[in-house]
Amino acid sequence: MKKLGALVFPGFELLDLFGPLEMFGMLKDQFENVILAEEPGLVRSNGGPSVLAEAGFEAAGYDLLLVPGGMGTRREIENARLGDWLVRAGGRSEILMSVCTGSALLARAGLLDGRRATSNKMAFDWVRKIGPSVDWVPEARWVEDGNIFTSSGVSAGMDMSLAVIARLHGTEVARKIAAAAEYHWQEDARLDPFARLHGLV
Amino acid sequence: MKKLGALVFPGFELLDLFGPLEMFGMLKDQFENVILAEEPGLVRSNGGPSVLAEAGFEAAGYDLLLVPGGMGTRREIENARLGDWLVRAGGRSEILMSVCTGSALLARAGLLDGRRATSNKMAFDWVRKIGPSVDWVPEARWVEDGNIFTSSGVSAGMDMSLAVIARLHGTEVARKIAAAAEYHWQEDARLDPFARLHGLV
Repeated sequence: MKKLGALVFPGFELLDLFGPLEMFGMLKDQFENVILAEEPGLVRSNGGPSVLAEAGFEAAGYDLLLVPGGMGTRREIENARLGDWLVRAGGRSEILMSVCTGSALLARAGLLDGRRATSNKMAFDWVRKIGPSVDWVPEARWVEDGNIFTSSGVSAGMDMSLAVIARLHGTEVARKIAAAAEYHWQEDARLDPFARLHGLV
Repeated sequence: MKKLGALVFPGFELLDLFGPLEMFGMLKDQFENVILAEEPGLVRSNGGPSVLAEAGFEAAGYDLLLVPGGMGTRREIENARLGDWLVRAGGRSEILMSVCTGSALLARAGLLDGRRATSNKMAFDWVRKIGPSVDWVPEARWVEDGNIFTSSGVSAGMDMSLAVIARLHGTEVARKIAAAAEYHWQEDARLDPFARLHGLV
């Protein structure tokens, strides 16, 4: 049983968080999903709905850590306490994941220096500035570099999560979860028509 | 500005709710999303995380109503207060939507009698029993019948939501939202490989 910590902050993007949690949540005997924030309590998303963070930064280590994006990342990159916590928690986790502009938070914390990573197509210029020492890959559904998985915008987090599940439990298990969610899993991380659509290649 | 009410109940499925809310939430100047439940307060999903229901059944009418599925529907079909409310609120809404086994709740309330509808592939025998007067369509990503949209399991709710947005604001707007979410919108409701995968055709 692995513990998956999913970070939220004011203005996080709903699907960045709940797309991945749906996929991991289908393996209830393998993953315990915990939503956490700087302080426990209600946290309002970019889209409006609020979710309950059941843990704060004081909580113990997580085997997997998920960092969503959303407009809130624009403010959170200035949050030193969040950055310090990401270095501590992310450094100890077996797998570190980000969706969308969540990679800007990892980059600002220095966790992506010298690593390959990706992000939301429409915020790419911004994330490049936040992480000048990161090898940013504009055309990728998601990027794996060692134990760090970063995905493109919003929906791409579901494909990345299934790739993480495939690494931990095999491709057939990941395919079964996609089928149960009636989700068309895009298994090839290199296919990314949205890079062209948004003018990045 | 249209008001979209998204119903939750204990054991609702995360992506059934937040996939659609992500899509509608991208049009902040067109849709106001409100999560509601029998009583306002925290409601725990099937996957674990809890969301805040900001309204209860006493609240005013909704232009659009979204009913997710999840294991909780097994209990909620016996909830007469929920059924009565669905008849009242659903009857007044311009568009009524369900994802996954949410269609079982609509069927039990009689809202689908004589209508074409679909549901989760792995729960199809169960929903058929709940709604014997419904014209269930096993092979469909989603089904439109007048003002009622019902989708297949979990992920299909996103495709259906984009179809609702297309009806209200045009196909190009829906495509732009899909692109912004980096989502591969399956625009053809008839394509449904999961029906075969799960042995329904």
